Amino acid sequence: MRYVKDIKDGYTVQDVYLCKTKNSATTKNGKEYLNVIIADKTGNIDCKIWNADSAGISDFEPMDYVFVNGEAKTFNGNLQIDIRQIRKADASEYNVEDFIPTSKKDVEEMYDAILKCISTVENNYLHALLEEFFVNDAEFIKAFKLSSAAKSIHHNFAGGLVEHTLGVARLCAFYAKQYPAINKDLLLTAALCHDIGKIYEYSPFPENDYTDEGNLLGHIVMGIEMAGEKIKGIPGFPKDLANELKHCIASHHGKLEFGSPKKPGIIEAVALSYADDTDAKIQSFIQYIEDAETYDWNFSRAFDGSIRMTKGE
Amino acid sequence: MRYVKDIKDGYTVQDVYLCKTKNSATTKNGKEYLNVIIADKTGNIDCKIWNADSAGISDFEPMDYVFVNGEAKTFNGNLQIDIRQIRKADASEYNVEDFIPTSKKDVEEMYDAILKCISTVENNYLHALLEEFFVNDAEFIKAFKLSSAAKSIHHNFAGGLVEHTLGVARLCAFYAKQYPAINKDLLLTAALCHDIGKIYEYSPFPENDYTDEGNLLGHIVMGIEMAGEKIKGIPGFPKDLANELKHCIASHHGKLEFGSPKKPGIIEAVALSYADDTDAKIQSFIQYIEDAETYDWNFSRAFDGSIRMTKGE
Amino acid sequence: MRYVKDIKDGYTVQDVYLCKTKNSATTKNGKEYLNVIIADKTGNIDCKIWNADSAGISDFEPMDYVFVNGEAKTFNGNLQIDIRQIRKADASEYNVEDFIPTSKKDVEEMYDAILKCISTVENNYLHALLEEFFVNDAEFIKAFKLSSAAKSIHHNFAGGLVEHTLGVARLCAFYAKQYPAINKDLLLTAALCHDIGKIYEYSPFPENDYTDEGNLLGHIVMGIEMAGEKIKGIPGFPKDLANELKHCIASHHGKLEFGSPKKPGIIEAVALSYADDTDAKIQSFIQYIEDAETYDWNFSRAFDGSIRMTKGE
Amino acid sequence: MRYVKDIKDGYTVQDVYLCKTKNSATTKNGKEYLNVIIADKTGNIDCKIWNADSAGISDFEPMDYVFVNGEAKTFNGNLQIDIRQIRKADASEYNVEDFIPTSKKDVEEMYDAILKCISTVENNYLHALLEEFFVNDAEFIKAFKLSSAAKSIHHNFAGGLVEHTLGVARLCAFYAKQYPAINKDLLLTAALCHDIGKIYEYSPFPENDYTDEGNLLGHIVMGIEMAGEKIKGIPGFPKDLANELKHCIASHHGKLEFGSPKKPGIIEAVALSYADDTDAKIQSFIQYIEDAETYDWNFSRAFDGSIRMTKGE
Amino acid sequence: MRYVKDIKDGYTVQDVYLCKTKNSATTKNGKEYLNVIIADKTGNIDCKIWNADSAGISDFEPMDYVFVNGEAKTFNGNLQIDIRQIRKADASEYNVEDFIPTSKKDVEEMYDAILKCISTVENNYLHALLEEFFVNDAEFIKAFKLSSAAKSIHHNFAGGLVEHTLGVARLCAFYAKQYPAINKDLLLTAALCHDIGKIYEYSPFPENDYTDEGNLLGHIVMGIEMAGEKIKGIPGFPKDLANELKHCIASHHGKLEFGSPKKPGIIEAVALSYADDTDAKIQSFIQYIEDAETYDWNFSRAFDGSIRMTKGE
Amino acid sequence: MRYVKDIKDGYTVQDVYLCKTKNSATTKNGKEYLNVIIADKTGNIDCKIWNADSAGISDFEPMDYVFVNGEAKTFNGNLQIDIRQIRKADASEYNVEDFIPTSKKDVEEMYDAILKCISTVENNYLHALLEEFFVNDAEFIKAFKLSSAAKSIHHNFAGGLVEHTLGVARLCAFYAKQYPAINKDLLLTAALCHDIGKIYEYSPFPENDYTDEGNLLGHIVMGIEMAGEKIKGIPGFPKDLANELKHCIASHHGKLEFGSPKKPGIIEAVALSYADDTDAKIQSFIQYIEDAETYDWNFSRAFDGSIRMTKGE
Repeated sequence: MRYVKDIKDGYTVQDVYLCKTKNSATTKNGKEYLNVIIADKTGNIDCKIWNADSAGISDFEPMDYVFVNGEAKTFNGNLQIDIRQIRKADASEYNVEDFIPTSKKDVEEMYDAILKCISTVENNYLHALLEEFFVNDAEFIKAFKLSSAAKSIHHNFAGGLVEHTLGVARLCAFYAKQYPAINKDLLLTAALCHDIGKIYEYSPFPENDYTDEGNLLGHIVMGIEMAGEKIKGIPGFPKDLANELKHCIASHHGKLEFGSPKKPGIIEAVALSYADDTDAKIQSFIQYIEDAETYDWNFSRAFDGSIRMTKGE
Repeated sequence: MRYVKDIKDGYTVQDVYLCKTKNSATTKNGKEYLNVIIADKTGNIDCKIWNADSAGISDFEPMDYVFVNGEAKTFNGNLQIDIRQIRKADASEYNVEDFIPTSKKDVEEMYDAILKCISTVENNYLHALLEEFFVNDAEFIKAFKLSSAAKSIHHNFAGGLVEHTLGVARLCAFYAKQYPAINKDLLLTAALCHDIGKIYEYSPFPENDYTDEGNLLGHIVMGIEMAGEKIKGIPGFPKDLANELKHCIASHHGKLEFGSPKKPGIIEAVALSYADDTDAKIQSFIQYIEDAETYDWNFSRAFDGSIRMTKGE
Repeated sequence: MRYVKDIKDGYTVQDVYLCKTKNSATTKNGKEYLNVIIADKTGNIDCKIWNADSAGISDFEPMDYVFVNGEAKTFNGNLQIDIRQIRKADASEYNVEDFIPTSKKDVEEMYDAILKCISTVENNYLHALLEEFFVNDAEFIKAFKLSSAAKSIHHNFAGGLVEHTLGVARLCAFYAKQYPAINKDLLLTAALCHDIGKIYEYSPFPENDYTDEGNLLGHIVMGIEMAGEKIKGIPGFPKDLANELKHCIASHHGKLEFGSPKKPGIIEAVALSYADDTDAKIQSFIQYIEDAETYDWNFSRAFDGSIRMTKGE
Repeated sequence: MRYVKDIKDGYTVQDVYLCKTKNSATTKNGKEYLNVIIADKTGNIDCKIWNADSAGISDFEPMDYVFVNGEAKTFNGNLQIDIRQIRKADASEYNVEDFIPTSKKDVEEMYDAILKCISTVENNYLHALLEEFFVNDAEFIKAFKLSSAAKSIHHNFAGGLVEHTLGVARLCAFYAKQYPAINKDLLLTAALCHDIGKIYEYSPFPENDYTDEGNLLGHIVMGIEMAGEKIKGIPGFPKDLANELKHCIASHHGKLEFGSPKKPGIIEAVALSYADDTDAKIQSFIQYIEDAETYDWNFSRAFDGSIRMTKGE
Repeated sequence: MRYVKDIKDGYTVQDVYLCKTKNSATTKNGKEYLNVIIADKTGNIDCKIWNADSAGISDFEPMDYVFVNGEAKTFNGNLQIDIRQIRKADASEYNVEDFIPTSKKDVEEMYDAILKCISTVENNYLHALLEEFFVNDAEFIKAFKLSSAAKSIHHNFAGGLVEHTLGVARLCAFYAKQYPAINKDLLLTAALCHDIGKIYEYSPFPENDYTDEGNLLGHIVMGIEMAGEKIKGIPGFPKDLANELKHCIASHHGKLEFGSPKKPGIIEAVALSYADDTDAKIQSFIQYIEDAETYDWNFSRAFDGSIRMTKGE
Repeated sequence: MRYVKDIKDGYTVQDVYLCKTKNSATTKNGKEYLNVIIADKTGNIDCKIWNADSAGISDFEPMDYVFVNGEAKTFNGNLQIDIRQIRKADASEYNVEDFIPTSKKDVEEMYDAILKCISTVENNYLHALLEEFFVNDAEFIKAFKLSSAAKSIHHNFAGGLVEHTLGVARLCAFYAKQYPAINKDLLLTAALCHDIGKIYEYSPFPENDYTDEGNLLGHIVMGIEMAGEKIKGIPGFPKDLANELKHCIASHHGKLEFGSPKKPGIIEAVALSYADDTDAKIQSFIQYIEDAETYDWNFSRAFDGSIRMTKGE
């Protein structure tokens, strides 16, 4: 398959893509035509269907996979495809993975690293809780591996939640080593659970947008509820420990104005909020660097300032 | 019983009070003595026990009720009691209500008004949920009636939670009448449930301080969990309705920086946040007016500015 | 007359509209043409005049009413009108009301409700002041009924000032009933007068934009001056009462950063600022709901967040 | 008279002072006594009256002038006066000026400079307005000369309003010379009138505290009303000019959060807000330097940071 | 030469301009063409080169000077040039000054005024330091005269740094006269040096954009380093004086959030920060007035509000 | 020596302490006495010298070491010492280390770890720069080892700068391992140099207060100047690398409002600012935990909220 990012002026396109939007329009001479945006995991491209009566046109809707036959052209400095033929595609004609941006790292390898992390948690209750999620709950595991950690900016791809969770957990493990006053088991458990609510906050790829309950409640509230549910199933789980863990989830954004209903009040909550922020911001910068190709300064919304790649010499 | 606020210079005090603090000290001439603060629902007063060896002194602790025999005197402009005799009191010697500030309004009457409010909710699921809390859950009802709505400033007395909840519910009922676009049942239910988490956020009177889970999680998170629990017990409770109700609880502080993990996103959540804020602020002002005895301007921390009683003529 | 919101692709348009803008342009082939935007109370639409020499073209200016004869077409997904003929219209050819968005509610009915409100004010001085404005000052009454309460977002239509003033007054009347500490007469008077300065802050419809003195002084300062003027004409009006009323007007935005030169310092001022904010925000949400046709989340500038219609079940 | 700042340990005090506060108290041994604070324009000092029965004690109230006969002593590191005798003083026994802090500069000289400023205003209407206030209104002139420009920090002394007004006017005259785009007459008039409302915002010395209308309305609103009143008396005063002048008064705090109901929107308003802020802040620093006697750093509330005198070499 | 601002619809253009950008594109019919933006000191204009094969097209790059032969036309309401012929220009064909916006005032005259300012500084060390920069360092002097004081909004033209520096110095000289507590020599020196780092913060005209070290360090840090360097070359320069001067440079933005690493802590630093802000804001307003041609209100990003020219009568 | 924290009611004190303050006072009966505060590295204690004529009293000043002979007593709940005899101590009578709070960790061991860190820096220029400071500059090394990293809250003891620098460097080394996009050499160098300016920002112990240049310039500006100086001595040090390193120092507080003149604009600067903040905040929490002895919640100024020790079970 030819990915969107590889389409160039003059190419003939004959492949299946995801239809993102579909709108009818009329030329100055009164001729009707269609504006369509198609996409795959590498990007979007505008298309025009000048012959609005051509077969198959009325058979597809946005978020359908469509077979596209057309010509790539530059118009007003932007590439677009003049579509000769378009029709809804059969499931057999495409591979869903081509439409889902994924982590550059191996998700299964990272998940194994998470399981290894879990094996270092010595507190029985916390260990049991982690196993309930990451070992015993097949539905959770599947959703967790497919989920992103954000809509945009950082870890905004399938596997992103695994990658971010592992990054945070590793920072936390290091903190616990460097600062022995930290309760390692509590911090690691909190790190692994801090974003579990995200599996319900975003819809699955290829959409990856806020769900209704994501908008209404957010991953912090949902994560606390999910943890609370599992904890109820673990006999004897100490109430104080449960509350401290929930507190870490509640406060992991660090500040009320970032959507945490409580500020960090115990050292593990403080540490978690730093690990979460550090991993997110450094990964955001890495994604910027991977895209940038110059040492020029660019304004970054995420950093609210100008940033550039490092020369270092 | 002679209430603290009625003790005057020269009075002989012979009654039971609540011991708030107890510290030993030494006079300039090296004599040991005790500083004790005693309280009832009307206020606090400092006491000195000059004879540190007197009987009964070592038998009581802070938060014990104590029988006090002493003399009220003015020292450095403040009233204090020179205690001749002090001892732990028997439960038979005092009435706990004397140590709990209470609403000036009748709690049972207000509770009846809440029940009447509930009877106007037509949606079966919401009505069932409200009955689960306010009719069927005896433990909840008892705690709800005794709880305050805040540590200080407004509704900081037993029955305060009932009074504030009713005040908010009445404002909401009026909003629903004035603005028909509002879903009355959802708004009323949200109004009645918005602060239910407070029964666990503050310890019971006479302490009325943040509990450990109050500090760790807060009444918003706990209220959502409490509602979620009850909802699970109501067969067929619609998921969307449950989420919208939880959203109203989650967002009732109106802004992230006030501890809501979500901003109001539906009209009932907007309305609830206004009702909550309006009732709290106007009640704060009323409590100020009830204490103030002049038309002078006073700086108010709650209003972050100078305020005064209205002359109005 | 065919309203702008009812014009569809393919329609022939032959009606009078308000010309909002008029600019000349040149096609790629060097042919001159005109871009014109026409409007009525239901919206705007772009027009092209390809024959720049056609009769009548040079005779009209922006903010003139023009007779338009043309064809509606879709271009690049947007509707536009290809104008065959256009000329300045006679006053006899159109009805100004078609160009002024108006309240869905009956303005006269609402005004009667305001008068009824006034009749409940028992304080002689305040009652006299209200009559000076709302009963005796014909020029004020006419402008008040025609004015909007805002440029956009909420009550941004003729009659909007009446509707908003009545909404605020009703909330205030309810507050006074629920919280007897409030001076009802002062609060009602303040509610009815809080936005009187708006009749000079916005130019009359169809323009409804900030006037020069609106920009220089704003409705708060002008409202205080207007009230002060009338008060001077009422013998014996108590100075303290006048200052408290002016204070309510001055502080009704609630915070300095919202343009109030003073924060609310008496309970009626606090109550008024809540009523004003509550009515404005709930009405903004209602206008959003009336336009929205889905349960999808939309970002709202007014609420600085995502909002949606309530499902409620 | 011996000023408060000159009283030293061991001195015998026999003079008239202003009584600021008067409270009764009781010694540890049960003896009643009085705490009194007396003051003059140089400061305050605590006093004790050990013999609570001595003649004259019940005859004076706070804000009375009292004759004091006593001994200055150091107690706990602070100076206090043990009063042997105290009584209300006759108006003939003291000079009110001794109790009013005054500008170090000659108020009449500064006022003459203001009049000279006025003589440079060429616009007839503005010139007439200034004469109405500063030449023709004897009551205004008297109050203006006696008023401070603030309760504390800068120009907080009688004559302070004259000094600050002159300082601002001189900065403005310089701006108009350096930046010819500025309308000199408008800016000078605005500078001279910007704080006229302060004569009603503070009570007269020796109190110098916010008046009731100062708290309710503030000097900006009152200043606009005062200017409006005078303008009405000047036939033909152009409306636009009046509004621009009022706008300068309205916006002279520069930002909404500093209590201006409008931000500066014309160049003279911008210039005035800078002149006002510059003169206030530099004068605050000068008053700090005049008090400080070391090059040590001190935290300054006014500057929200540490400040020190300049060494300069 | 015909300046960009003077080009009108229908003109034939035959002159040298600076090429700002150059991009290839394709018409709907598949024909390739070029979009080019050309500029001089008066503005920018879009150009189209329809014949992409014409001679000379591949020989120039952005930031080259090019000879343009074409026709000015209006398209979609904007002027553009249809280029018939274009080629890289010889240095002999244009005058660099035509591409550099310059101060309306004579730079040399203003520089002389700066030198006169310097001659009034009596402190030997400060005088020596100023001469090191403004008299002895030819490279500095040249760069200083050519530099702007900002990328946009105010003094964003060659000579702007001289003009702003002189404006600030004159305000400071006036402050020192009006407030004798100010150390005139220190303040004047600080005024003259406060923005010296700007010669390295912006690239030279015609680019005038942030340099790499401008982005990394900014003019405050670089200015302190530049001053420190020169000071080291002046034997006996007092350490305290050097630190106070550097402090003035460090704190001249007045607040941390504006990029000053320290807030003003001595009176000269306070005064400098006011002078800098006053001159920048008033000059911004003047540049707005010079462009505006109506008394209409316009939203200004620089003032974060609506502004207009003053009528004044 | 008996440390201040070990003095108990009834103890006889006969040791050398540091005199922090010394003030004369007078008892109610007119007897003069002295208030003195003495200190060592473990804390402060109030003292009274009732016999103001006793030998030696006039011979010592604040910040002198004094031999104290007295009795510890409790007065008003606070311990104080009634001094019988006091005199200036000989240098031979005390050990300066007893008056300097020091890191609980071995400073030399931590310094060795810093040197080991340096040995991992492969870039020749950066390595040379680090050696210039940490190996070759004896004066710097001595000051660096003795300095604190803050006046209070965290690392506010001798060796604190070493401990904090090492903590930050270790976090940075871990980041570089976890995120390979980071330039390890640049980040490590920046970590080791980020607070070098602190050796001049605080005066040496036992004072540990802001120096004059600390107040005027701060450790960020001074650190950049120190680095710049050393860099000039290293032939061929690349300009870009120098600027990037200085940028890391400049931006290590992460935000302008925290005193950084630039926000982090390269990934190493972002990483450094997180490491600095993380180490400071976690260490602050650790110092809190080490002092706290209960699981009660306490309000923390540093965290602007309530915090407590973790139960963890």
